[in-house]
Amino acid sequence: MKKQPLFPVLNGLLHGGDYNPDQWLDRPDILAQDIEYMKKAGINCVSLGIFSWSSYEPREGEYHFEWLKNVMDTLYANGIYTILATPSGAKPAWLDRKYPDCLRVDNMGIRYHHGDRHNYCMSSENFRGKLKNINSMLAQRFAHHPGLLMWHISNEMGGDCFCPLCQQKFVEYLRNKFDNDIEKLNKAWWTTFWSHKYSCFEEIEPPFANGSIDIMGLMLEWRRFTTWNMIDCMKSEIEVVKAANPDIPVTANLMNMYNGLDYRALAKEIDVVSWDSYPRFHNDWESFDDTMRELAYSHAVFRCLKKDKPFMLMECTPSLTNWQAYNKLKRPGVMRLQAVQAVATGSDTVQYFQIRKSRGSFEQYHGAVIDHAGIDNRVFREVSEVGDILKKIDSVAGTKVNAKAALLFDWDNRWAIQDMQAMCVADKKYEKTLVDFWREFNRCGAEVDVISSLDDFSDYKIIIAPMLYILHPGVAQRLTEFVKNGGQLLATYLTGYTDENLLCHLGGFPGDNLSDLFGIYSEEMDTLFPSDRNGIKFRGFENKIEVFDCCEILKVKDAEVIGRYTDDFYKDTPAITVKCFGDGSAYYVAARTKASDLAPIFEQMIKNAGIMPNVMPPMIDYHERVADGEVYRFYLNLSDKENCVADVKGYDLISEKEICGTLTLSGYGTAVVKNIK
Amino acid sequence: MKKQPLFPVLNGLLHGGDYNPDQWLDRPDILAQDIEYMKKAGINCVSLGIFSWSSYEPREGEYHFEWLKNVMDTLYANGIYTILATPSGAKPAWLDRKYPDCLRVDNMGIRYHHGDRHNYCMSSENFRGKLKNINSMLAQRFAHHPGLLMWHISNEMGGDCFCPLCQQKFVEYLRNKFDNDIEKLNKAWWTTFWSHKYSCFEEIEPPFANGSIDIMGLMLEWRRFTTWNMIDCMKSEIEVVKAANPDIPVTANLMNMYNGLDYRALAKEIDVVSWDSYPRFHNDWESFDDTMRELAYSHAVFRCLKKDKPFMLMECTPSLTNWQAYNKLKRPGVMRLQAVQAVATGSDTVQYFQIRKSRGSFEQYHGAVIDHAGIDNRVFREVSEVGDILKKIDSVAGTKVNAKAALLFDWDNRWAIQDMQAMCVADKKYEKTLVDFWREFNRCGAEVDVISSLDDFSDYKIIIAPMLYILHPGVAQRLTEFVKNGGQLLATYLTGYTDENLLCHLGGFPGDNLSDLFGIYSEEMDTLFPSDRNGIKFRGFENKIEVFDCCEILKVKDAEVIGRYTDDFYKDTPAITVKCFGDGSAYYVAARTKASDLAPIFEQMIKNAGIMPNVMPPMIDYHERVADGEVYRFYLNLSDKENCVADVKGYDLISEKEICGTLTLSGYGTAVVKNIK
Amino acid sequence: MKKQPLFPVLNGLLHGGDYNPDQWLDRPDILAQDIEYMKKAGINCVSLGIFSWSSYEPREGEYHFEWLKNVMDTLYANGIYTILATPSGAKPAWLDRKYPDCLRVDNMGIRYHHGDRHNYCMSSENFRGKLKNINSMLAQRFAHHPGLLMWHISNEMGGDCFCPLCQQKFVEYLRNKFDNDIEKLNKAWWTTFWSHKYSCFEEIEPPFANGSIDIMGLMLEWRRFTTWNMIDCMKSEIEVVKAANPDIPVTANLMNMYNGLDYRALAKEIDVVSWDSYPRFHNDWESFDDTMRELAYSHAVFRCLKKDKPFMLMECTPSLTNWQAYNKLKRPGVMRLQAVQAVATGSDTVQYFQIRKSRGSFEQYHGAVIDHAGIDNRVFREVSEVGDILKKIDSVAGTKVNAKAALLFDWDNRWAIQDMQAMCVADKKYEKTLVDFWREFNRCGAEVDVISSLDDFSDYKIIIAPMLYILHPGVAQRLTEFVKNGGQLLATYLTGYTDENLLCHLGGFPGDNLSDLFGIYSEEMDTLFPSDRNGIKFRGFENKIEVFDCCEILKVKDAEVIGRYTDDFYKDTPAITVKCFGDGSAYYVAARTKASDLAPIFEQMIKNAGIMPNVMPPMIDYHERVADGEVYRFYLNLSDKENCVADVKGYDLISEKEICGTLTLSGYGTAVVKNIK
Repeated sequence: MKKQPLFPVLNGLLHGGDYNPDQWLDRPDILAQDIEYMKKAGINCVSLGIFSWSSYEPREGEYHFEWLKNVMDTLYANGIYTILATPSGAKPAWLDRKYPDCLRVDNMGIRYHHGDRHNYCMSSENFRGKLKNINSMLAQRFAHHPGLLMWHISNEMGGDCFCPLCQQKFVEYLRNKFDNDIEKLNKAWWTTFWSHKYSCFEEIEPPFANGSIDIMGLMLEWRRFTTWNMIDCMKSEIEVVKAANPDIPVTANLMNMYNGLDYRALAKEIDVVSWDSYPRFHNDWESFDDTMRELAYSHAVFRCLKKDKPFMLMECTPSLTNWQAYNKLKRPGVMRLQAVQAVATGSDTVQYFQIRKSRGSFEQYHGAVIDHAGIDNRVFREVSEVGDILKKIDSVAGTKVNAKAALLFDWDNRWAIQDMQAMCVADKKYEKTLVDFWREFNRCGAEVDVISSLDDFSDYKIIIAPMLYILHPGVAQRLTEFVKNGGQLLATYLTGYTDENLLCHLGGFPGDNLSDLFGIYSEEMDTLFPSDRNGIKFRGFENKIEVFDCCEILKVKDAEVIGRYTDDFYKDTPAITVKCFGDGSAYYVAARTKASDLAPIFEQMIKNAGIMPNVMPPMIDYHERVADGEVYRFYLNLSDKENCVADVKGYDLISEKEICGTLTLSGYGTAVVKNIK
Repeated sequence: MKKQPLFPVLNGLLHGGDYNPDQWLDRPDILAQDIEYMKKAGINCVSLGIFSWSSYEPREGEYHFEWLKNVMDTLYANGIYTILATPSGAKPAWLDRKYPDCLRVDNMGIRYHHGDRHNYCMSSENFRGKLKNINSMLAQRFAHHPGLLMWHISNEMGGDCFCPLCQQKFVEYLRNKFDNDIEKLNKAWWTTFWSHKYSCFEEIEPPFANGSIDIMGLMLEWRRFTTWNMIDCMKSEIEVVKAANPDIPVTANLMNMYNGLDYRALAKEIDVVSWDSYPRFHNDWESFDDTMRELAYSHAVFRCLKKDKPFMLMECTPSLTNWQAYNKLKRPGVMRLQAVQAVATGSDTVQYFQIRKSRGSFEQYHGAVIDHAGIDNRVFREVSEVGDILKKIDSVAGTKVNAKAALLFDWDNRWAIQDMQAMCVADKKYEKTLVDFWREFNRCGAEVDVISSLDDFSDYKIIIAPMLYILHPGVAQRLTEFVKNGGQLLATYLTGYTDENLLCHLGGFPGDNLSDLFGIYSEEMDTLFPSDRNGIKFRGFENKIEVFDCCEILKVKDAEVIGRYTDDFYKDTPAITVKCFGDGSAYYVAARTKASDLAPIFEQMIKNAGIMPNVMPPMIDYHERVADGEVYRFYLNLSDKENCVADVKGYDLISEKEICGTLTLSGYGTAVVKNIK
Repeated sequence: MKKQPLFPVLNGLLHGGDYNPDQWLDRPDILAQDIEYMKKAGINCVSLGIFSWSSYEPREGEYHFEWLKNVMDTLYANGIYTILATPSGAKPAWLDRKYPDCLRVDNMGIRYHHGDRHNYCMSSENFRGKLKNINSMLAQRFAHHPGLLMWHISNEMGGDCFCPLCQQKFVEYLRNKFDNDIEKLNKAWWTTFWSHKYSCFEEIEPPFANGSIDIMGLMLEWRRFTTWNMIDCMKSEIEVVKAANPDIPVTANLMNMYNGLDYRALAKEIDVVSWDSYPRFHNDWESFDDTMRELAYSHAVFRCLKKDKPFMLMECTPSLTNWQAYNKLKRPGVMRLQAVQAVATGSDTVQYFQIRKSRGSFEQYHGAVIDHAGIDNRVFREVSEVGDILKKIDSVAGTKVNAKAALLFDWDNRWAIQDMQAMCVADKKYEKTLVDFWREFNRCGAEVDVISSLDDFSDYKIIIAPMLYILHPGVAQRLTEFVKNGGQLLATYLTGYTDENLLCHLGGFPGDNLSDLFGIYSEEMDTLFPSDRNGIKFRGFENKIEVFDCCEILKVKDAEVIGRYTDDFYKDTPAITVKCFGDGSAYYVAARTKASDLAPIFEQMIKNAGIMPNVMPPMIDYHERVADGEVYRFYLNLSDKENCVADVKGYDLISEKEICGTLTLSGYGTAVVKNIK
């Protein structure tokens, strides 16, 4: 593996954040002061222009870019680079007023009024035309600016639109997908059910809330179409900026576990993946340790959208948010911990929303590097400390995370499970189950990637596939090959129920011959009421583990039973099985338990896979980045108390000390240990 | 009483379910297989075509009935009859697209989009015309098919429509009802309140959510109108099929305690009552015993919609539903228990939704006789067992349930109580109170019918009238006659507050002279906050029972006080009274308690009425069907453990054994005991 | 201070209520009977015509006032005065049908249907024209009727409208406010944020729910505009009636803590303040004592809207409401207690909704003086007792409450805090905090007014300013003057964050130099999750008090620290401070605690202020009214048990006994003690 830094010109890691100088053009004193503050905090890059359309073009055809030029020039002169956004994140009022088709229509058919953000109609030619115009002007003027590091396409894209233009585009999309053959669509969507057969494509409407929300295939295809349409619009933005200078990379800032877009499809069209991270730290429903490891999971999701290079932590708050239900302060040291964890899991940047608090409007109380009252405060001091640390560990830039285990997660699987009418309809906990499995494997000492069932499995020795409801064509066969070749595979209840159009596999679940791989089939799915409990007793153990939410009732063909239900009419029937197949093993967990109760199985899989686990003391999060034969070992103390790790050897870039034996970390402390050559 | 079998041609009970062969027309292998499976399960009838409009008429004017003919022919050739539906349960897409007035308008004035089901505008002439056309073609072709057993009109009719056509029809309905005299309506609805007087009928709008939802009379009349309009549309369907062959009976499948239609009015227009039953078995908020007895209550409701003949259990799931909040499996034996209970309480059929699982769309995970994976499973085995049992007890067909007690339940009373602005506004628990009273009387050993306050009381010795808020003209007088002639009457708080237009009775509650019958009047109604409690101490007993929700404060005229409040400022005032009047007794319960705490009163009433109670051990549900001098005694074990009933004598049709002494039932077991001649 | 009776002609206090004879015009027997009943209950005034538009003008241009003349004449002949309403509380159906622009449009842009009440579009010229017409006819006929005491303008005005007319008026309002300078508005609303800059006033829309709800300044200004527009419409009503007879005073009945209108602005335009009071007595979430003291707080709010004269308790229920979630009966004696408390806190009236129950429609079960069944009941007897007491204490009429402490409460501060995106976004508990502080000061023995931060402070020695988020121009300076001159000031977290347009004060909070007054600044605001707790330890005390919801982290400049946090990373930092400045003291409480835990500070402030506290035993509410050198001391027993107050001296007008020493009050009993001359 070779180092592949995102921004060679930076010669290290990027430290930055969103900055809105257009709010302060009448205060040159503040703008000048800000630059001094940024330098003090070790900031080497800012993101500009994210919501500047109305500053660039306050009236249709009247343009103002001079302020941006001044700001970029001055920043560059002070060693600060710019990530420049295309301004589609929010439309100016004149645009919506003159071209109302730029406004979306909601799922009741009601057109939105002007306001808010992230809400243009992706199909409106008026919108696309005006956007292309402003983007072109921006690109012409700034694509070759020496301070320009990257384009930031739009902002946190999302949502869908039910306007007539989108409906028409949806129809064309379907016509194309189904070879202009309405009977093909009728069959794929099983429309004979409830007399939903279409006689022509023109009859198809989006899933209006007061229309067709009961055709599973339509629901799923609408989400795929929305992804497609959003990407199509994003690509039209990228084209313009690339045309001006193909060397400037583009990114789009994604949102943690956002449901509305298939990010894996989107990621293909951008150069670098970046995301905005706002965990609920110090909440009252889970441990801080759980929160931090879920955050590591999220990093893994985004890292694996483009496995060949580092990702960017585009936004996080230096202190608190203002828009969550409860906006609690990050405790001292947590910003540092979060920054180092981001790098540990594959990010080459630590960026904030925001550099300076806005004086008014919606986010005037959102945390920022520079407060209304200036910088004489804890938050600025902690940001500056992050700046120092990033400089100390700058050699990490361009290295990679190398995982031998992978968790399967597909957006369309997620959507299908959400819409599925069965089990506890309101919440099947797919996302939570993914996090729980990932977190527990991680605690067992394995670094885990998060990939698609359509991705190549050859880099991995372990595949974890919770609730793999949809089996895309070829997946079952590839999983079988994987196990045959020595892979360790874990699947659960709800595996292989449907094909990619959500038609059930006939012949039993898991379908598409997966039943043979696991050596079982699932005869029935029992759903438990919230206070219902069952249990599983492992073979040879006295203790039982607790079961809740759902239980598949299995028939075993040729698997080995390693756990059995303890209660109810399916007491003593198989709940956990394994089948050795070829050189590998295929595990099946038929019921929902706490992931931590499955640790013995996870440990066995890691052992079977020949992976040397990095088992840490409690409350230590561990990750590695590697390249050019160098290994950077990241130790993160998730406790606010001092914590130790035994048998560490190397040079800690942060404390700048040699470690030989016990590594002692202060509360929320971190170490980045390199081998001593 | 004489036997009156619904379907003499069947020579016994009907065992069947909904079947959708149009989903599998490209799979003749599956269709052929299905028939073999059905025969194996003892199925003698299926319901076809419930959602087949788009299969019959995929494009306007293009018709396809050949598949249906093939299916019906083959079924008939295999001894399986058909119940054929009119296809108005769901509209084809082309219909809504071409004639948008077929789409309903919601209570915010927003027209629905095409999709879902059960949502045609009942007033649309376009809809009615197209429906008449397709129904005529269906009737012409199949009304004389030898396999045709019955017409199934539409499906689970419900909902209302606020479109201009419906509004206009509502106005005409009101004009007719109020003799074209707007002042008569103004007076009946007390519109002087809040300046709501109308100057002409045209001013009246339906109760839009953002319009007039505060005129009690309007709210009530809108529901009566919706019932009337739905029946009017249903009758137009019936006319067509009866015209083709008047000998084929019609039914409409009703929904348990559905709120939107007065089923008693609807039942008058069909030949046989049928309903769809989906209890939440094994839930975590009530005992299984309570669930089963509530189910018996529901059967009583539907049985009494047409007291002169058996009803049909048109739908139930063989295993689980897919659309409830939590879709739990029925435990082994429960399908059998449910089937026998249905027959015990007056059904001559046991029918399932559905024969075969659909491969896709909304109900692809709903329980079915035939699974995606075939029939080698518990569910199919249990359905087959039901088939066997139904054959064993086929002589029950056509017998009747003979109850001497009746509970009063009127839909308009229900609606009025829901809308009533008083007490705990959000939930006055009328429906729950009905069930609780019915269940407790049943546990005390009395079979109880559920009838209207407008029905004839002469068959009964006990009338239970909880929360009889509306007094229709003549009801007070008829109740008085009933008691005078020896009847036992029980009423509660909230009795006799209004007339049929929801105008309060002046002169005190209970109004219309019922105050004289009970010998009390209610001076005030106290509503308790959720955690508030009061109590009642019965005369001569130490124990007190708990009171919650509401307490009327009574003044006694000439009743006997049998219980007094234990707390608060009305401590020691009367809470339960009885007045002996003529040869009967009139009980008044002024506060809400658990129904089981009133058992001593219920037992006294049963005793007074001279009814011999069938008192069973705990967890035994007991019912009788009778005809031609024969009595079928049904014993249902509501426990999953073995359970016994002492002193049983006769021949058990299910075990095919003679019982003399103790009847032993296995978990969820059932027996149908006939006298030995 | 001089007595200033509201209605000299009454020669004492007013006892009355809403009366709707137009509902009973066909029952002259009932109307005649009602007058006898009223006289029996000591009622000397009724409110008429509140919802009579459709009785006056059942069809456009057809008028009927003869019935009103008859009723007013008869009442007057029987010694009963009339408060006459303008009928805009509800529109007749013909009006909305013919002029649909009289109907409001909701915040999704959907126009309401006819119905309900309090929902005219304030901008509709059609509405205003028709209203002016009916008001003129009413005024011409009745403005000089000898029985007319007062005009009651409309009823419980509220709500807002998003129709095009209102939008246009909003634009004009803004144009006027911002000097027709769009850049001035852009700056005030900080619209550069999220690209929300407007290029002209015409682009501005109201805050549609699916539009601009994220511009804080727009949200706030919309509420100010709605107040302005509602007052403008109200003034057009007042003009008409004043033109007919300028001597008849006008009022508008306000609603307790209603959020939608700035009552302080509205109160300026009416002669007398009146309000409708419906506390949740005897609920299950707080003590009765708390409920009653919150009610006293509400009286203080309304009293201080016009400090120079008594206010009116325009509506309360004699027994129960019908529209609350749980409609519980007032316990015996509570109506009397509530009546005397109203007078104690500054009301010269006790008025009911309603004199007689309506037979039908929405409020047919609302408590009334006269029941459906007549007057032989507890409620009527209690109302009659109130009538007797009001006669005994009639010399109180025209006296005033004289408070030396004031709590600051501004409607725009309330709106700004609600909309603020920070802390626990859903509920910052401003209103609850106001009540808690007021109640606790009251328990500590101080009578407290409730005033605006823009009001004159010179009458007061104590200013309590919880969560004074907005600092209007000059307020900070006036507070500083207040303290300098010896005032005791208390502020809390969230003080002085923004200016009147919701732009943050730069330079630290509390802004506008308040930081100097308190000697502290607030570096960060921590928000606690619901189950999080911190504590405060007072200097020199062992005990700590509990902290929840929010904690500001302070930096002390030159204040004295009197309490420190006990936990978390800001343990031992200052939580409560005081700074002596000039002759006064400025207290700052940085975290939320129970108000009762702050009692030592409140007591110190009262002592510092030289106010002699009226400290009462538990469950005794105490108030004074004074004038012409006379003091009326009101003792209210909030317990349902007997309760005593020591050292009372004087003549009790209610028991008509001389008290010298211990005053004994029965459960819910009251005494009004005058000095013996």
